[in-house]
Amino acid sequence: MSNNTTIDLVKTPSLILDEERMSNNISGLLSRIEAQSVTFRPHMKTAKCVEVARRVMTSPRGPITVSTLKEAEQFADAGVRDILYAVGIAPNKLDAVLALRAKGVDLSILVDSIAQAEAVAAKARLEGDPIPVLIEIDADGYRGGVPADETETVLAVGRALHEGGAELRGILTYSGATYECREVDEIRAVAERERRAATRSAELLRNAGLPCPIVSVGSTPTALFSRDFTGVTEVRAGVFAFFDLVMAGLGVCSVDDIALSVLATVIGHQHDGRRILVDAGWMAMSRDLGTAGQRVSQGYGVVCDLDGEIIPDLIMSGASQEHGILSLRPDSRRALPDLPIGTLVRILPNHACATAAQHHRYNVVSKGSREVTAVWDRFSGW
Amino acid sequence: MSNNTTIDLVKTPSLILDEERMSNNISGLLSRIEAQSVTFRPHMKTAKCVEVARRVMTSPRGPITVSTLKEAEQFADAGVRDILYAVGIAPNKLDAVLALRAKGVDLSILVDSIAQAEAVAAKARLEGDPIPVLIEIDADGYRGGVPADETETVLAVGRALHEGGAELRGILTYSGATYECREVDEIRAVAERERRAATRSAELLRNAGLPCPIVSVGSTPTALFSRDFTGVTEVRAGVFAFFDLVMAGLGVCSVDDIALSVLATVIGHQHDGRRILVDAGWMAMSRDLGTAGQRVSQGYGVVCDLDGEIIPDLIMSGASQEHGILSLRPDSRRALPDLPIGTLVRILPNHACATAAQHHRYNVVSKGSREVTAVWDRFSGW
Repeated sequence: MSNNTTIDLVKTPSLILDEERMSNNISGLLSRIEAQSVTFRPHMKTAKCVEVARRVMTSPRGPITVSTLKEAEQFADAGVRDILYAVGIAPNKLDAVLALRAKGVDLSILVDSIAQAEAVAAKARLEGDPIPVLIEIDADGYRGGVPADETETVLAVGRALHEGGAELRGILTYSGATYECREVDEIRAVAERERRAATRSAELLRNAGLPCPIVSVGSTPTALFSRDFTGVTEVRAGVFAFFDLVMAGLGVCSVDDIALSVLATVIGHQHDGRRILVDAGWMAMSRDLGTAGQRVSQGYGVVCDLDGEIIPDLIMSGASQEHGILSLRPDSRRALPDLPIGTLVRILPNHACATAAQHHRYNVVSKGSREVTAVWDRFSGW
Repeated sequence: MSNNTTIDLVKTPSLILDEERMSNNISGLLSRIEAQSVTFRPHMKTAKCVEVARRVMTSPRGPITVSTLKEAEQFADAGVRDILYAVGIAPNKLDAVLALRAKGVDLSILVDSIAQAEAVAAKARLEGDPIPVLIEIDADGYRGGVPADETETVLAVGRALHEGGAELRGILTYSGATYECREVDEIRAVAERERRAATRSAELLRNAGLPCPIVSVGSTPTALFSRDFTGVTEVRAGVFAFFDLVMAGLGVCSVDDIALSVLATVIGHQHDGRRILVDAGWMAMSRDLGTAGQRVSQGYGVVCDLDGEIIPDLIMSGASQEHGILSLRPDSRRALPDLPIGTLVRILPNHACATAAQHHRYNVVSKGSREVTAVWDRFSGW
């Protein structure tokens, strides 16, 4: 989609994507991963946008990671051929998986239980399609995965897949524990735990005579800071292209790296000038308060001017559906800035995945320019 | 859209709407309001769906309330002709307002400052369209509105509109304070404060020789529980058609009245059977934790079986983007129920407006039946 407009003419609330910042974020991570000689399989759950995917992928055919089969279908329609659906499979999704594979997509899936492995293997035999499967290993008790120390279960899942008619393609770990880290050394420790859980499980399979070509690890924090990729074949990361306040709070990026913001208009002033109301509420920002548990709570987001320069100490401190409340940080000694009705601001989000999901498109700008150079559609739903 | 399917064949996660419960919720509020001889102007920000609007509106032409101009446009396309956009107007939205009015929609807007009133009046004069405007009055310091005791400002806004070329149509209040109530008597007190703020401001305008035909109050809690509508001409309410756990926590409805749920599939078990994973995370439920400050925190939602019967003590205690974690309430003495991989559950949301917004359509069922009788599209964005 093309256009000839400037950011001050975009209707509010809207999503603004700074392409220069995004490009820097992408090249920063890609150069790090290329130096490690591992495959990069970016996670498209944040952007859900074909144009962003084309800038993040190492080839037009992928590989990519997705969080829904809708993403798999949309990216397959755009020509991507190597897709990992990285949420534990439900048996009722196998028909959709097979339909995509029948179109020529190398779609692989995830299991973490014998029950799932048996269901997938049975379907693979029934349909004559050796569905490729990774075994999810749980390195930190965060979410899914066979606990790394349950070696008998790992082997049983591997055998159920390999001997049952599916393709045992490897091991996958994800370390959600990085979200609780307070400094980069803690992220490095999490990354090393993740790597060890993955590589040991891979060894376990191989020692039992089972195949394990892929050892997949990663998240934006661990992809950026882990020091050792020995035994790892593939790294995943998603939010790195946009970054957000949660990532900045972890020390993974600077606030100035954040490429995504929500454009909003000032619509009122309250409480003797202590609050400014804007037309972006939680519907535009999401309800994500991901920095609330970090050193500095950013409320619903950090407020910038139209050019993306941070307005000191001003955050979105409250939100209802279509109203955002801007106020100074509790410890600020500044005066509230003079932002008359109609003033446009840009609000940096806590969590790019959640905020982007509230919108249908990205208005693309470049740092320092008000020109909207492109409008990129994004998709949502399942 | 029609179909011939049953709920167990709907892909997950998906939104399920129990039409029988919804109809009971609607008739409950409508009969109460009709008895008061006031106009009912339902708020469509929760449903954002033409089929739901048709069941909630008192006539095919409205009136309705909306929270975005996108809603106004969509409902106008469906034939609604009396629409109130109940978020303080930004000057950059006036062209879209005028475009809808030029199509024959009686679209009214909201202001709470002299600056807005002057901008609207100037636009009204320039375009020769006396845009109808309500003045928002702040009864409780919750969000927008001229503080009820700032009588000079109320009058100045009224004069700027009436003498400036716009149509001064009346007064509007909204009491967000009900969300902090702990019992019905507190809701009644908030409702009475809201009524007094509205009717006194209306008197103020009328005594100054200014018109004020409409006095609009309401929210689901105050519409259901206020005892006195003297001086009020119009009542608004939105979430009442669906209800949710926040409303149940306030005592405004029973959990058994909640018409909306998210269908999800069990995809795993963790932590020695203390956690169940499902394929509905915060993307399907939203990040809204609105019951966290109430007497009973419901996490991300209350878990029911496929027929909508509550599974005792089971809540969604955690969520990542596409994973929900189900566990027993902290004080439960029960054993975790046996929900094998592939089991379908339905999760009642904290906040219907936020959860519905994450989905593209409603799968309509009726209590006690598994037949999906209709699929209704909903819209989103701005």
